[in-house]
Amino acid sequence: MRESIKLGHGSGGVLTHRLIRDIFLKTFNNRILRRLEDAAAIGRLAFTTDAYVVKPLFFPGGDIGRLAVSGTVNDLAMKGAVPKYLSITFIIEEGFPVDELKIVSRSAQQAAAQARVKIVAGDTKVVEKGAADRLFITTAGIGIIPGGTNVSPARVRPGDVIIINGTIGDHGIAVLNKRLELGLVMKLVSDCAPLGHLVQTMLSTGSNRRAVHMMRDPTRGGVATSLNEISKQAGVGIIIDEEALPIRPAVHGACELLGLDPLYVANEGKVIAIVARKAAGRILPTMRKHPLGRNSTVIGEVVKRPRGLFLKTGIGGLRPLLMLETEMLPRIC
Amino acid sequence: MRESIKLGHGSGGVLTHRLIRDIFLKTFNNRILRRLEDAAAIGRLAFTTDAYVVKPLFFPGGDIGRLAVSGTVNDLAMKGAVPKYLSITFIIEEGFPVDELKIVSRSAQQAAAQARVKIVAGDTKVVEKGAADRLFITTAGIGIIPGGTNVSPARVRPGDVIIINGTIGDHGIAVLNKRLELGLVMKLVSDCAPLGHLVQTMLSTGSNRRAVHMMRDPTRGGVATSLNEISKQAGVGIIIDEEALPIRPAVHGACELLGLDPLYVANEGKVIAIVARKAAGRILPTMRKHPLGRNSTVIGEVVKRPRGLFLKTGIGGLRPLLMLETEMLPRIC
Repeated sequence: MRESIKLGHGSGGVLTHRLIRDIFLKTFNNRILRRLEDAAAIGRLAFTTDAYVVKPLFFPGGDIGRLAVSGTVNDLAMKGAVPKYLSITFIIEEGFPVDELKIVSRSAQQAAAQARVKIVAGDTKVVEKGAADRLFITTAGIGIIPGGTNVSPARVRPGDVIIINGTIGDHGIAVLNKRLELGLVMKLVSDCAPLGHLVQTMLSTGSNRRAVHMMRDPTRGGVATSLNEISKQAGVGIIIDEEALPIRPAVHGACELLGLDPLYVANEGKVIAIVARKAAGRILPTMRKHPLGRNSTVIGEVVKRPRGLFLKTGIGGLRPLLMLETEMLPRIC
Repeated sequence: MRESIKLGHGSGGVLTHRLIRDIFLKTFNNRILRRLEDAAAIGRLAFTTDAYVVKPLFFPGGDIGRLAVSGTVNDLAMKGAVPKYLSITFIIEEGFPVDELKIVSRSAQQAAAQARVKIVAGDTKVVEKGAADRLFITTAGIGIIPGGTNVSPARVRPGDVIIINGTIGDHGIAVLNKRLELGLVMKLVSDCAPLGHLVQTMLSTGSNRRAVHMMRDPTRGGVATSLNEISKQAGVGIIIDEEALPIRPAVHGACELLGLDPLYVANEGKVIAIVARKAAGRILPTMRKHPLGRNSTVIGEVVKRPRGLFLKTGIGGLRPLLMLETEMLPRIC
């Protein structure tokens, strides 16, 4: 039987990785792409792209326009780059309201202004009714990596600590609540935000640039998927502490209700920073002073062995957190 | 009544321009975007993006993969940039055959190799069955503008001549023939190709760089739409000579049958170059030596008045060629 694309191929999990390895890496084979980082580093230039198919387009805390700008800004920031220029393309279904296109564009521009980037190139395509679900956006971005910045999996060392800048799972649950019209009255708001400025603050001194070994934004597949990737790319083990995980009660409750694990739910305004242990006491207060880092906290540590990602549970056991094979939440970003 | 997006908003014609002016320019307002060139020039860096929704995905002479790479390479080349790096995103409908994704990826890589660019960043999203028509691709590209290169509408002067590197309308008619299963037995093949190397050849000497005033690739909306844009941006008139237009008999015949004007049909491997008249005798032979420029020819000239675009007909009259309001050929690229 001919193999066909499943929703899981877009999950960010095992199937996505297999697709990337078996098709894209093999076909587009080059040294830069093989690194599989959030943004490609070409000398001092960082370059990245993401497609956005979130459903619904509007959700508490944002919309596809804000998401498309924030996501690409964040991918640049994760390489330590200062985001500078964005491109944006719109694929629009015939009949889409012009008013909504205006709102989405304004949201994109607001996020761009917040991130101090300019949207300098774009394209619009319209497809006939039924050929697309309302609106898809793709952004690409260029940033400049300041001299002395080198964040990469190769720098991760056993003993490093794992910092996150706030609560986990907010984006995915906010979108899901809106999409499924769950009517959860709890306050569920996406964390969707551009992190460029927070990251620049974190990297503003030479000693901090040495201490921040790598960063990743835990979007599709959530914190557990990102940490699994880091563990694999850096060749280390990672242990996170269940009791240290910042999760809003509303998100926790919604996850229980839906049978979801917040560790696998997408975030869109979060950075995971792997930081030299001795510098954490200096970097955490810096992050907490920033509006997007108020709830920054250490959630775990890097170990030599065992390899892979583990959750230290309340009762002291180690539970492996694997990459998911299937799609838990399609069209979350 | 609430205004909604029509197919014509994606035509490249009047509605597209209105959308760009009323929403995107107004919202993303910045100096670089306002120039509305094929690629944004940021100092010596050129940056561009395009979305591809061509239907069908495979057509004689190419497929969406080859198209997505060629189109973005060509946009960079039109600014005189040497294309260097590309990003690519795939929005895939659930159920799409993995084999076809492989073929499309290989075509993209073949075009990238031909254009000497590397695909260094990407993203894949999967949407549920019915939420997209098979496959959409967006590419973005970065190129380097060599010192001494300055191609821009501001350099167009009355007296300049209009050169095109070959036949008109091949891509649009090839796609349409395949889509409508017209069964036209004539040889209709897309011209889809990356023009980076041809353009670099054209700009390889200092005197040529001075003589080539601007370039544009006449894709969506065809030669007539591109020349209308040039006329407007440069504040000049343009007269093209009906008898000088290179059109394959098969394309001519298909256009007659379908009631289409080849001047408004998309090309995907063509460059319109506006060149100082005295240099045309030097640049044409250079172009004709290149595999993608064998049929290069002068098709018209720039005049001070009348403003706008005109066709000098066989009997010597001047017929205005306006921007089209409606969509002649949806989803051609």
